Amino acid sequence: MITVTHDERQPDTAIAAAHQAKNAARTLRTTPSFGRAEALHHIAAALVSGASRILAANSQDLELATAAGLGVSLIQRLRLNPDKINDMATQVCAVAAQDDPIGRLLSATQLDDGLVLHQVSCPLGVILAIIEARPDAISQIAALAIKSGNTVLLKVGTEAKYTAGAVIEIMHDALVSHGVVPPDAVTLVDGRAAIDVLLQKDDLIDLVIPRGSTAMVRSIMARTRIPVMGHAAGVCHIYVDAAADVDMAITILLDAKIQYPAACNSVETALVHASIAPRLLGQLVDRLAAAGVEVRGCSKTQTCVTSRTIRAATSDDWGAEYSDLVLAIRVVDDIDAAIAHIGQYGSGHTEGIVTSDATAAAYFLARVDAAGVFHNASTRFADGYRYGLGAEVGISTGKLHARGPVGLAGLTTYKYLLYGDGHIVASYVGAGARTFQHVPLLVTGPRNEPAAAVD
Amino acid sequence: MITVTHDERQPDTAIAAAHQAKNAARTLRTTPSFGRAEALHHIAAALVSGASRILAANSQDLELATAAGLGVSLIQRLRLNPDKINDMATQVCAVAAQDDPIGRLLSATQLDDGLVLHQVSCPLGVILAIIEARPDAISQIAALAIKSGNTVLLKVGTEAKYTAGAVIEIMHDALVSHGVVPPDAVTLVDGRAAIDVLLQKDDLIDLVIPRGSTAMVRSIMARTRIPVMGHAAGVCHIYVDAAADVDMAITILLDAKIQYPAACNSVETALVHASIAPRLLGQLVDRLAAAGVEVRGCSKTQTCVTSRTIRAATSDDWGAEYSDLVLAIRVVDDIDAAIAHIGQYGSGHTEGIVTSDATAAAYFLARVDAAGVFHNASTRFADGYRYGLGAEVGISTGKLHARGPVGLAGLTTYKYLLYGDGHIVASYVGAGARTFQHVPLLVTGPRNEPAAAVD
Repeated sequence: MITVTHDERQPDTAIAAAHQAKNAARTLRTTPSFGRAEALHHIAAALVSGASRILAANSQDLELATAAGLGVSLIQRLRLNPDKINDMATQVCAVAAQDDPIGRLLSATQLDDGLVLHQVSCPLGVILAIIEARPDAISQIAALAIKSGNTVLLKVGTEAKYTAGAVIEIMHDALVSHGVVPPDAVTLVDGRAAIDVLLQKDDLIDLVIPRGSTAMVRSIMARTRIPVMGHAAGVCHIYVDAAADVDMAITILLDAKIQYPAACNSVETALVHASIAPRLLGQLVDRLAAAGVEVRGCSKTQTCVTSRTIRAATSDDWGAEYSDLVLAIRVVDDIDAAIAHIGQYGSGHTEGIVTSDATAAAYFLARVDAAGVFHNASTRFADGYRYGLGAEVGISTGKLHARGPVGLAGLTTYKYLLYGDGHIVASYVGAGARTFQHVPLLVTGPRNEPAAAVD
Repeated sequence: MITVTHDERQPDTAIAAAHQAKNAARTLRTTPSFGRAEALHHIAAALVSGASRILAANSQDLELATAAGLGVSLIQRLRLNPDKINDMATQVCAVAAQDDPIGRLLSATQLDDGLVLHQVSCPLGVILAIIEARPDAISQIAALAIKSGNTVLLKVGTEAKYTAGAVIEIMHDALVSHGVVPPDAVTLVDGRAAIDVLLQKDDLIDLVIPRGSTAMVRSIMARTRIPVMGHAAGVCHIYVDAAADVDMAITILLDAKIQYPAACNSVETALVHASIAPRLLGQLVDRLAAAGVEVRGCSKTQTCVTSRTIRAATSDDWGAEYSDLVLAIRVVDDIDAAIAHIGQYGSGHTEGIVTSDATAAAYFLARVDAAGVFHNASTRFADGYRYGLGAEVGISTGKLHARGPVGLAGLTTYKYLLYGDGHIVASYVGAGARTFQHVPLLVTGPRNEPAAAVD
């Protein structure tokens, strides 16, 4: 169902699409690894050979966006060219090349003679992804879903309506001609009414992945009982400890602020130990100003910086997600004050410490409760590609299931398979009862060294 | 806060208790493994030495229960004696003896020279457990929480009010005298009003674990945005394939039905391949009848069984959770019909196949989407202790986070710790960009054999 529907038919069409996605998920659950990977290579080839069709659709979206006076950055993200379409295809191939996340043996235990328990990874089922108007996000999420054996209902920002239609149609056709992965594995759904009705369908949809503004994500979370994976805010802090190297602290703070200010993993507040503040803040603020960053500081920050006037931070600045070239700076008395500030204002995304004191670093890393806690590194490293996950569907600040950048593994669950030979529980009860052996059959150890025996 | 509160103060008291639990969780997050285990041994000893106090409180509950005319089975579960208190203490020690679930290195990747990413297990934070009136469940859940570094707010069925008060008071006193685990790690909360307000507090509570009736669990799930771990129903099927051993099938079905009919992992419907039905059903029904099991069969079942009259199954019987000595039987044409029946009526708990045909077993295990799928074994094995998890907080039929029996690992999440030396993302962008190495530093392999090299 790839046709863009009229509003009044959206709910019925969406529910029909969800049923088809669930049926397709039943098939895809047992599609072999090779078939799923090969299907992705077919999709990648189809995207490249369908480039002119995608570009034509993209022009329609761009015309409408320009006519509607949409912002420059949105239009930039929306605009495709042949190189970008090649990149989309390359990303799909990169997902195809990842290790198969399903059918992995996660644990194995011999419960008794002839009674063996396997814990095996398997797909979740049907995913509803609600994403911003970014054409590359469409192919990437579709690829991650197919690779992990899931089917996906995709709602794409309306600004990319025609582009999304063309991309999904090409993927759909590629699946039809390849003939292994069910074409209903990827379906475009359209319209608010469709989303409203799908968010109620916890019998058809296993996971919702919203990507977009904080307000949009919060609204989705409030409207559904289906598990939602994502983050509503990215309020990241970097604490510069008393024992920090000043140059390193400045370099890391600049990278975390200016390398891509709109990213959720950019730093929003610097917390600076009082004893290093006099040596650090003047230089830091000058470097930030040179990079066009506006600083909002606490009164101690204002006192430390004599070279220029610092705008006073208000209580609204602590915990603010600027997503822009603005940095709040607060001087703290000690590491515990920094940890307490993060506990109060952080969003559980990524927090960092800069210090040469290993004990202070360990203290901070153990106590800060966030998806990522970094020592002497930019918060901008919090990303599925940089973590080595290949690609990501998003970054989760929830604690359940998947936390931080979520790649293929986050789109899987597991089931327990028990292999017996007529075993019954009554044999383990009462006089002469058998006892369980519980012998672990798998162990984890350092790479390239014999795994230690477990017992 | 262990005092049983008056209704009008319940919400305030509950919120205060949740704040204390969150503060305690901050401390417990860094309490060493040894300290948590030792605290559990202190609790176990205190339960034994406090037995007379617990028994006195238990008598009060039993008097009230008898006066209120509560059912025999509830009173049985409620009634303690010195042996049962010893068992509670032994269970606490068994949890203490488990491997530490927190601080485990789950993955390790060298991103680049000097830039290493660790994925480390850590506690969730604060758990709200809403449990039935079973004294042993109180000490077991408290032990699992403390062992996994979480703090727990416990709401216990009112029938066990005095017993729960005594048990928690003794645990609390033991924690105070031991002095390592914060005493607020385990807190009793009381009253519906308290639960109502706590279910709204997703800023204070990380996970809700409800244990009890299907109606109670569903009601909790409908009333909160906090993740809920549990199962609303256990509708388990056993499919007897054409190639089943008849004796094995009967033995397994009897065990799964009668060994503990009220358990969520007992079988509710037998699906029988048409070609084996004539040989199987007569014997099966006779054996079930001898064990006091009422059978409700489809028309083909009625035809196959000539020795007695089988009550006709109605559409209400498919998917029914009898939790009693009743079994529905349906004859199916083939394995796909059995899988389709399970897909329609199963609750995703535990499903089984009995067959001597390895291909049929593999086909069934791959296609059935449930927390447990068993070959030639009773569904009653679906249990944390039998799986070797040591103990369980419950069985989850959700797909996210934890599925099936949930032990200590299900009470943990993870965080990513990144160790750098001033690394910034800008170094990996543009001309002369560094490339990521992504060298995995941990591998999983078969026990007692060298782990295979990964790259």
